Amino acid sequence: MSTATASATPSSEADIRALIDSWIKSVHAQDVAGIASHYAPDILAFDAIMQLQFKGREAYTKHWEACLAMCPGPGIFEMHDLRITAGEDVGFAHCLNRCGGTDESGEEKASWMRMTAGYRKSNGKWTVVHEHWSAPFDMESGKALFDLKP
Amino acid sequence: MSTATASATPSSEADIRALIDSWIKSVHAQDVAGIASHYAPDILAFDAIMQLQFKGREAYTKHWEACLAMCPGPGIFEMHDLRITAGEDVGFAHCLNRCGGTDESGEEKASWMRMTAGYRKSNGKWTVVHEHWSAPFDMESGKALFDLKP
Repeated sequence: MSTATASATPSSEADIRALIDSWIKSVHAQDVAGIASHYAPDILAFDAIMQLQFKGREAYTKHWEACLAMCPGPGIFEMHDLRITAGEDVGFAHCLNRCGGTDESGEEKASWMRMTAGYRKSNGKWTVVHEHWSAPFDMESGKALFDLKP
Repeated sequence: MSTATASATPSSEADIRALIDSWIKSVHAQDVAGIASHYAPDILAFDAIMQLQFKGREAYTKHWEACLAMCPGPGIFEMHDLRITAGEDVGFAHCLNRCGGTDESGEEKASWMRMTAGYRKSNGKWTVVHEHWSAPFDMESGKALFDLKP
């Protein structure tokens, strides 16, 4: 994981980085309950696929279950160029994410996505209150651009 | 514009709201220099089309010029369900955005997009340091989903 940092409050930045590290471990373990434990009950998520938005932790957790079911086998989920901007009790982060999986013949099928997340500290605890995942699309074909590289 | 609010610091929320209002006025006026004046020099943007990312105000301003050139005539650019989360010197916002234009016959061609933005206050001035725009795509066809409605 490559990182760059722009933070106003170093301790908050460290807290958010720890939250992200823990969340990634849950994703790599395909542990849906673990993933959901990082989210605020009122999270509002814009995911890369299917719907405009997912309102609340329950709806977004169900979506994560569906997404993980689509990607059996050794998953690829790499964060790159992570940048965290952190204040006292509000922060956000963005990164590029190489994600996908490995097919039956062992070949990697992955593409580059973008992620932005918003964080809030309440009662001493940081949670994810917003996530935004996407791939850009081509104006002519209307198709998502899966072959772009940073 | 419909809004919902989740703010830790009311004065920061008002400042960010004023920044967004001013930025929208520039977009409606197709005023590229005005749009760019809201951006930090080191803004990193994930736009909905063409590239994975745009690094810095100059690159992102050129992209805005290209985008506005694609949408002549009365443009549609409506923000809905704006939610601002604001701390002392860091904040973020997200919303749905109905955007498009009007064709030769006067018919509206618009679709719903999602936007997330990150803000930072430096030397007493708030600027946009990150923007993320997207449409979700369909897993089967790989096509952007332009017909979704909130």
